[in-house]
Amino acid sequence: MEAITYTLTLKVEGAKDLMVPVVSGTSILEGAKKANLAIDAPCSGNGTCGKCRVHVLTGEVESKETRHISPEEYSSGYRLACSSTICSDLTVSVPASALAYQTRMKVTDLSTSREQGIFAALQEELRDRGFWGDHGLSLVRVQLQKPALDDAMADRERLLWAMAEQINSTSESIHFSLHALRKLPQVLRSADFSGTAVLRQDADQKYTVLDLFSGAESENPSPVLAGLAIDIGTTSVSILLVNLQTGELLAVGSAGNGQIRYGADVISRIIESTRPGGLERLHKAVTDECIGLLIKQICHTAGLPQESMYRVVVAANTTMTHLFLGVPAEHLRLEPYVPAFFTTGTLRGTDLGLGVHPDAEVEIAPSIGSYVGGDITAGAFSSMIFKKESLSLLIDLGTNGELVFGNGEFLMACACSAGPAFEGGDISCGMRATDGAIEACTIDQNTLEPTFKIIGPAGQKPLGLCGSGLIDTIGELFRCGVINAKGRITHEGKRTFRDEWGIGGYILAYADQSESGRDIVLTETDIDNFIRAKGAIFSAIRTMLTMLDFSIDAVEAVYVSGGIGSGINVKNAIRIGMFPNLPLEQYHYIGNSSLSGAYGMLMSRKATEKVLEIGRGMTYLELSSHPSYMDEFVAACFIPHTDGALFSLET
Amino acid sequence: MEAITYTLTLKVEGAKDLMVPVVSGTSILEGAKKANLAIDAPCSGNGTCGKCRVHVLTGEVESKETRHISPEEYSSGYRLACSSTICSDLTVSVPASALAYQTRMKVTDLSTSREQGIFAALQEELRDRGFWGDHGLSLVRVQLQKPALDDAMADRERLLWAMAEQINSTSESIHFSLHALRKLPQVLRSADFSGTAVLRQDADQKYTVLDLFSGAESENPSPVLAGLAIDIGTTSVSILLVNLQTGELLAVGSAGNGQIRYGADVISRIIESTRPGGLERLHKAVTDECIGLLIKQICHTAGLPQESMYRVVVAANTTMTHLFLGVPAEHLRLEPYVPAFFTTGTLRGTDLGLGVHPDAEVEIAPSIGSYVGGDITAGAFSSMIFKKESLSLLIDLGTNGELVFGNGEFLMACACSAGPAFEGGDISCGMRATDGAIEACTIDQNTLEPTFKIIGPAGQKPLGLCGSGLIDTIGELFRCGVINAKGRITHEGKRTFRDEWGIGGYILAYADQSESGRDIVLTETDIDNFIRAKGAIFSAIRTMLTMLDFSIDAVEAVYVSGGIGSGINVKNAIRIGMFPNLPLEQYHYIGNSSLSGAYGMLMSRKATEKVLEIGRGMTYLELSSHPSYMDEFVAACFIPHTDGALFSLET
Repeated sequence: MEAITYTLTLKVEGAKDLMVPVVSGTSILEGAKKANLAIDAPCSGNGTCGKCRVHVLTGEVESKETRHISPEEYSSGYRLACSSTICSDLTVSVPASALAYQTRMKVTDLSTSREQGIFAALQEELRDRGFWGDHGLSLVRVQLQKPALDDAMADRERLLWAMAEQINSTSESIHFSLHALRKLPQVLRSADFSGTAVLRQDADQKYTVLDLFSGAESENPSPVLAGLAIDIGTTSVSILLVNLQTGELLAVGSAGNGQIRYGADVISRIIESTRPGGLERLHKAVTDECIGLLIKQICHTAGLPQESMYRVVVAANTTMTHLFLGVPAEHLRLEPYVPAFFTTGTLRGTDLGLGVHPDAEVEIAPSIGSYVGGDITAGAFSSMIFKKESLSLLIDLGTNGELVFGNGEFLMACACSAGPAFEGGDISCGMRATDGAIEACTIDQNTLEPTFKIIGPAGQKPLGLCGSGLIDTIGELFRCGVINAKGRITHEGKRTFRDEWGIGGYILAYADQSESGRDIVLTETDIDNFIRAKGAIFSAIRTMLTMLDFSIDAVEAVYVSGGIGSGINVKNAIRIGMFPNLPLEQYHYIGNSSLSGAYGMLMSRKATEKVLEIGRGMTYLELSSHPSYMDEFVAACFIPHTDGALFSLET
Repeated sequence: MEAITYTLTLKVEGAKDLMVPVVSGTSILEGAKKANLAIDAPCSGNGTCGKCRVHVLTGEVESKETRHISPEEYSSGYRLACSSTICSDLTVSVPASALAYQTRMKVTDLSTSREQGIFAALQEELRDRGFWGDHGLSLVRVQLQKPALDDAMADRERLLWAMAEQINSTSESIHFSLHALRKLPQVLRSADFSGTAVLRQDADQKYTVLDLFSGAESENPSPVLAGLAIDIGTTSVSILLVNLQTGELLAVGSAGNGQIRYGADVISRIIESTRPGGLERLHKAVTDECIGLLIKQICHTAGLPQESMYRVVVAANTTMTHLFLGVPAEHLRLEPYVPAFFTTGTLRGTDLGLGVHPDAEVEIAPSIGSYVGGDITAGAFSSMIFKKESLSLLIDLGTNGELVFGNGEFLMACACSAGPAFEGGDISCGMRATDGAIEACTIDQNTLEPTFKIIGPAGQKPLGLCGSGLIDTIGELFRCGVINAKGRITHEGKRTFRDEWGIGGYILAYADQSESGRDIVLTETDIDNFIRAKGAIFSAIRTMLTMLDFSIDAVEAVYVSGGIGSGINVKNAIRIGMFPNLPLEQYHYIGNSSLSGAYGMLMSRKATEKVLEIGRGMTYLELSSHPSYMDEFVAACFIPHTDGALFSLET
């Protein structure tokens, strides 16, 4: 039988319809992947989890029966995307969550005043410690003698001679970027042979002319020396477009990591990368299809051409760094777990193929092992724990949770797999800390009515829960006795329910009060997912400190970073057994420390050198080799813990 | 009226049909340009020269009447391509010469024993003078400790540490190309962590790992360090693929310059480049559509991937260098005639976008003025005149003729526009010095029967005239009194004719003896074109020497280079007034000196430095500013000259 091609039309609320050609027999789930939509399917399309439910509007499908779809739902067109194959042109309505990595996964975007405060403090600290402005880039005004019949020196040589004199160098020491050369004749002639050059001082008293602007372009405002700090998380990507002269943010952008459709965690991505063409697919998904588009967008926002990005810094975990650079990652998960590289040296803009200046200096934050990457070395830098005498703990809450413990004398790091719950993934009403996110929640013990703090303008209706809101809600549900230590709903009442398959839940907001017009619900499945995530973090902290023969009390400061939201209520995080029971004033939320570290490296070569030094000096601890780690994890998968005394708060 | 799109189908003998969409009202000439066919139209499409004749097979055209098409021809479908606009889908037969830059323009390909001899002599001279092998590239065998759970150093760092020890350097001094990094994990694991690296020593004791081959790949034969020497002429392009360890040629390739369809000379190209999108068009025509394809071909021939081209050298005239690099060239022809650059510094493979190794060192031979470019500085190097005490003259016969005069103490250069006649252009039966080309010719004074030396295997039938054959034929026709001093046919007989428009000609070979099955004919128009070309050369020599206060006798050696063919008969060249009347033994044919110079630069950084030094030291003489140049030119446009005494040969 020959394969026939049909058109699959996907309707997503609040977005444009997507159309893709699919071969007959393709499942709706596969078809949606082709359209870059990630329909939630935790069971990987085996028909068991029932989460990939879609609504077939027109066309024919062949579907297996499933307990997840009732006869009534079936007759009105509901199907599981994984278990339905396409037999005609088809129009399907899919949940908005399928756009997760495009919309829901919006990262900390420095739009709240708290985030802005954190960022301002970072800038001040970088300035104070001398990690500021030594990126080698500068603007040089030039005014050349006009050529004449008896002075027919070529433009390039004319400029280099003048510039060499101005900067006290020789013309042979100045490299001229082809990008600048292509602009040179026009730029010089448009303003009487005057202009402004973007010059970079390289090593050994060498220089590069990166760009040129005519005299007219150079006045009011003068050209901008711009650069990009990029954090590539497993779940989401964030970019800062920075004015390198002032440190000011000219634009920020974030999006879900385009690789999400190939799997939620790094292991699935690595496996996909070993399939035929897989490495190229994953490389393109995060470069061209994600970061490339983001760069285009934010450059447009800032009103700058992409070629004006003269310096780029990338911080990411080890797997993401490999896939971003198109380097095979499979050995990261094969014994003896050896990455292809820890460091890359300085790369060039063209190496990335993202439309930034071809001769831009590109720095990649160093990895120290297969599971502790540049996000952590950059984060260890921006947290400044390497400068301190007191023992500090850095907790980076991402899809992979990573911990760094130490001070100015030593730094130890370890990693654990937390899953995407802290970033709003794996939680049915989860979302990023952006407009509409419930970032804080209290629940009345008597009425069980919740009170929210919602991100966004006054009057903003709730849309979902970000990480900090999730911690609060679960903490409050536990405090009020709505859920037990295993996360099961033990209370029946107005706001709780149990569905036909026996899954309990708590209704945070009713359809008529929510932004989406649908109930905002936290289910036992969500709570399970969250408990595993927080259990992974806490057991990692315990195991690491035990391995190093430190008690929890030895920790003098805790820095919490990640996309969990800025308003994290540490008391609740301790109450549910996520963070160790230390005095609240020892906790500091520092935002996206990987992105902050990349920002520091962008602003300063000395910072870049420091991050490399941190990478060389940091010791990696492999938790899984420790015999007690599994026991610790199991014990931590309760609220708060099997050993409740660990979390006995005074209040 | 709305424009309608038709399909123009072009039939060319010996080639596949070409189809292009054209808008109604387009001329056939324009349509053919869209299909990359260059129908000969010296009058630029004004309907006056009558050379763009085509045969309309099906479809409708609107044509102007012309004296170039007889009523009989008109009724059987013959038209001038420039004066016929397309009114329907159309099928047209066009002359094979329209494929000129694809087939006819094959360059000196080192296939003859004489060319091979010239090349062998060049290699020996380079070796003797120490311009050999110092390109910085080498192969380094590495054998690494295998990683283990307690030795989880990343692959890149593992390799760099081992290599640093081996070459007595530090791992920080070695840059690792992203290209090599992408191959690293697989290569190491395919042969027990042994392999061979391609290492380049850069300036200041820095190194770059460009490539990696596994242990297995590295044995019998070991990896090849390959590079490309590229000569970009206005009319044709030649490339040598060289084994940098031995100097051996692994493949050679040549083709017409893809820009030919935008005009035959540099001035037309520059004008075209100033039209909207023109610079990009001309850039692509010579890069992607010409050199890019040639590189692909010759790498395939040599059995090497394009990324194994680790070093590239390009020599070209100033306009070609600008357009090749995508740099605006318009100011080359606007007073005060200032190029955008003389030199470029060392560029990188990615700058060119031609699929060579992204970190390849790319050297561009320096220009010294708008009309004396890298082809001449490279040629002055390969001729070695800069090393000599005696006064030498280098004559480079290309579309632009260039001259260099001097010795070890000084070098002067000038340029003149000869047109493409020496390379077989503008001559109805002209062709490159390749199989089928008549490279030498004698004519019997009594019978006027010609005798040929034809390039190719025994029994090869003649196909046309290359430059050397053209000089011979015109010299012999003049000696036998068939043509007069103005190049007019003055003899009536068996092999001569005069067509209905009064143009005389000489039949070199009848249809039944020729390879193409058509008469090979030299017309008065051809002879005119050639006389202007040789007149330009000779008058330039005279004017330059006069400007420098030297007589012709001061010249002690003459080096002749260019695609004119290796078998140039100097006696005939003197007889017709092309070369000065100096003892024959003072003449040396040195082949394509630009390509030879590029080859030298490829094999040696010292040679590259020497060419740059030659460029800095060479003085440019502007002939057109000399009051007597025009008079000299007019006087030289006779056979041999208005002053015949200048060329009185002894024989």
